[in-house]
Amino acid sequence: MPPFDESAGPVLDLLRQTPLVRDTRGASLQRQLHQRIRDAILDGRLPSGCRLPGSRTLATALGISRNSVTAVYELLGAEGYIALSRQGTRVSTLDRPAERTRGREARQAAAPELARRAARVRDSLLNAGQDLPFRPGVPALARFPLSAWRNCLDRAVRRVGTAGLWYGDPQGEPALRAAIMRHLAVARGVRCEPDRIVITEGAQEALSLCVRLVTNPGDKAWIEDPGYRGARTAMLCGDLDIVPMRVDEQGLRIPDEAWAAHTPRLVYVSPSHQYPTGAVLTAARRLDLIGQAQRYGAWIVEDDYDSEYRHAGELVGAMQGLVPNAPVLYVGTFSKTLFPSLRLGFLVLPETLAAQAGPLLKESLRGGHRFEQLALAEFIESGQFSRHLGRMRRLYKRRQDALRAALKRYLDVPHVVAGGNSGMHLTIKLPADCSDVRIAQAARALEMAPMPLSRFASCPLPEDTGLVLGYGNTSESSFVPLVQKLASLIRDDLRLGHA
Amino acid sequence: MPPFDESAGPVLDLLRQTPLVRDTRGASLQRQLHQRIRDAILDGRLPSGCRLPGSRTLATALGISRNSVTAVYELLGAEGYIALSRQGTRVSTLDRPAERTRGREARQAAAPELARRAARVRDSLLNAGQDLPFRPGVPALARFPLSAWRNCLDRAVRRVGTAGLWYGDPQGEPALRAAIMRHLAVARGVRCEPDRIVITEGAQEALSLCVRLVTNPGDKAWIEDPGYRGARTAMLCGDLDIVPMRVDEQGLRIPDEAWAAHTPRLVYVSPSHQYPTGAVLTAARRLDLIGQAQRYGAWIVEDDYDSEYRHAGELVGAMQGLVPNAPVLYVGTFSKTLFPSLRLGFLVLPETLAAQAGPLLKESLRGGHRFEQLALAEFIESGQFSRHLGRMRRLYKRRQDALRAALKRYLDVPHVVAGGNSGMHLTIKLPADCSDVRIAQAARALEMAPMPLSRFASCPLPEDTGLVLGYGNTSESSFVPLVQKLASLIRDDLRLGHA
Repeated sequence: MPPFDESAGPVLDLLRQTPLVRDTRGASLQRQLHQRIRDAILDGRLPSGCRLPGSRTLATALGISRNSVTAVYELLGAEGYIALSRQGTRVSTLDRPAERTRGREARQAAAPELARRAARVRDSLLNAGQDLPFRPGVPALARFPLSAWRNCLDRAVRRVGTAGLWYGDPQGEPALRAAIMRHLAVARGVRCEPDRIVITEGAQEALSLCVRLVTNPGDKAWIEDPGYRGARTAMLCGDLDIVPMRVDEQGLRIPDEAWAAHTPRLVYVSPSHQYPTGAVLTAARRLDLIGQAQRYGAWIVEDDYDSEYRHAGELVGAMQGLVPNAPVLYVGTFSKTLFPSLRLGFLVLPETLAAQAGPLLKESLRGGHRFEQLALAEFIESGQFSRHLGRMRRLYKRRQDALRAALKRYLDVPHVVAGGNSGMHLTIKLPADCSDVRIAQAARALEMAPMPLSRFASCPLPEDTGLVLGYGNTSESSFVPLVQKLASLIRDDLRLGHA
Repeated sequence: MPPFDESAGPVLDLLRQTPLVRDTRGASLQRQLHQRIRDAILDGRLPSGCRLPGSRTLATALGISRNSVTAVYELLGAEGYIALSRQGTRVSTLDRPAERTRGREARQAAAPELARRAARVRDSLLNAGQDLPFRPGVPALARFPLSAWRNCLDRAVRRVGTAGLWYGDPQGEPALRAAIMRHLAVARGVRCEPDRIVITEGAQEALSLCVRLVTNPGDKAWIEDPGYRGARTAMLCGDLDIVPMRVDEQGLRIPDEAWAAHTPRLVYVSPSHQYPTGAVLTAARRLDLIGQAQRYGAWIVEDDYDSEYRHAGELVGAMQGLVPNAPVLYVGTFSKTLFPSLRLGFLVLPETLAAQAGPLLKESLRGGHRFEQLALAEFIESGQFSRHLGRMRRLYKRRQDALRAALKRYLDVPHVVAGGNSGMHLTIKLPADCSDVRIAQAARALEMAPMPLSRFASCPLPEDTGLVLGYGNTSESSFVPLVQKLASLIRDDLRLGHA
């Protein structure tokens, strides 16, 4: 292609077609000029080899300083759009726009789809963009001692100052890890040292970290069915071969032959309060699970998401501390005990794993949220955390009682309320001839967010028809009208099913 | 096994060997008793079938209320450790401890090692647990307007109240996404709508998300060599086949034949300020990269980590906005522009991908940090962010000038200072006969944290010997003594190499 033989005239006209403006958002004249020339080069109005006006000429034509033009030319030169030589400033030879258009067409023909791991994730209706009654997993936000918390934060900021703006330890603040260790030992019977604790972005990051640390793509992972969808998502993203295991009133039920037939690398379990059925894994099953995992070289991921809120009897202890050196990765979160948007959770690693995990943790975690972590350490150590837990335990007990009473009185359809001695949700099982998904969708329109039980199951059975009802963030007095509305929706749906 | 035929005597003695204590941390008498009985069952002192004393007897013997004992028995019953029947309370049949011991031995024999993906990650010396001079990637923490930031936070708390404790939108606060969109359009030429922005836990989560969204295990991913280790880690964790591509003074250099020979699914690039060499990817290479990616169905991950800090000329624009519908996933972070422990970054998805990514985003992200996100939205929209950037740009320019001057005067070993018209670090290349790792380690002992350039390379060449020197968080007056110490270390190392 011969060089475009231009006089300064047409190029100058092109470049001053629209006057440059000073705008209020700080886009300077230089930036505008740079963008104008670059765009003209990219769309072919200034073709390869085209000579640009001298900086003095252009500056005069545009009414800006010569320095500005020089700076823009230098930048365009650094970016490779133009070349500066003794013969003047010329547009470089670039991939032609026509070529680029063809490229786009080629791409449209073979547009790469979403990754398989991403495409396998189905929407659960779980994460509605709003906080509505019955949404599981939300604590009593209005009862959180926000100003006491803010005081802890302020003290952390005053104490640490701008040093707290730095990344911090990739595993999290040592003071917080020590506080968590002491709390877990007393409240959950978890045995560990602070260097085995990793502070994470809520439980979800902890689960992803478990997958990264101990699994390879294609490894078998057992999950509870029905069970927590976040665990399933973490495993899908880690390309695991997911084997759902049914849950009964005693928690995760593992057929003996499964160990040899589908030997897992990872077993996910929520033993203290199975999510969403509320079952407590019996001692016999806990010991069997640990023993078999040891025999078959599997790791257990224990998700202890809300077991601090046990309403009847004492707390159920964690599996982690049940026998020495149990092959358990223990996952906890402050989303339920404090508040969800805090996004602080943690992972307690088994000793052998902690010793090997250093490089991955250092290279993939960045610490951060130091003021929040230090505030939380103080909140725990000062006893405010325990007192808050006590208050919330009593509150959730009252709320659960109120919800149970409302269900008993107003839910005039056949149903069973599944195990609920802890936590912030109840699961009701419904007749298999209604559609829990349809009911949940209809409820959404009435500003309620119960979750369809069937969406927690990998292969939903008829008995997985039901609703998961969070009661943590709903005041006791609201349950009667809410349950009445819900009952009416379920009756309508049953009629629809029978029609 | 015949039932253990005990009188109440020995069991009572066992259970009251040590008196129960009231401790200050809230471990109640019930909890202690529960743990004591459970442990005795687990370690075999109370074998299967053993009858426990009646609740009244035990309560009297221990000096506690009968209700407490009943509650503990109920819990142990719920957990399956004991069975309550008309014949009294007996220990259930459980997996024997001897069995468990054998299990542990079996496990030790076949202890599962770390996952391959985790084991492939090598420690870089990058994430020292301390903030030391020369550590790359740390902005001027003491110059951050912490009290102005705290004011924004306070206003967000007052405005939103306890509603801000809820999870929030999985993609992040809409107000923040709108503010980022407006800022990016003006400052970086990025074209997008807020619904294509995902707020992430810093750039690292954004990179992991890119891998999850568009790659399958075994896919080829191209990275810059030398290049940012965090990108490599994200790809290792996604089980990608990593193909390192060399970087020269014009940035990422891709041999033409590579597209067909090693067709990538993902190309990672830091075009505006290559990390760590500082090169700017030329316009010709940008256009070629976009065109080829379109032809071969590859996605480009553009990491724009610190390009707001360009010292010479105007800002270099982002690749994302270079042509319409470029197949670019744009990654940004506020770790360099505000402060690292804020842990807020973002990902701008291409339109086609954004439309498909919904389920994965909703199921794997949890929103959170709402007050911080709303504070940041205000910080941007009120113009404080731009002003802060302007101040920091001038500061880093001064600091870079001071470091360059100190290097010129006091670094009396052969070296080259590589491209540094932006950002917060300079890279110096050193003679291949010294060991940059050894020098970096020696520097650590002197409280400095320069990073060895060779550790940024997948397959280090002799020319990758050097040091990456962060200057963002070091005052101008410190560079002379620091460089003098560094020069002495390098001289020592060269002598060692020659000896």
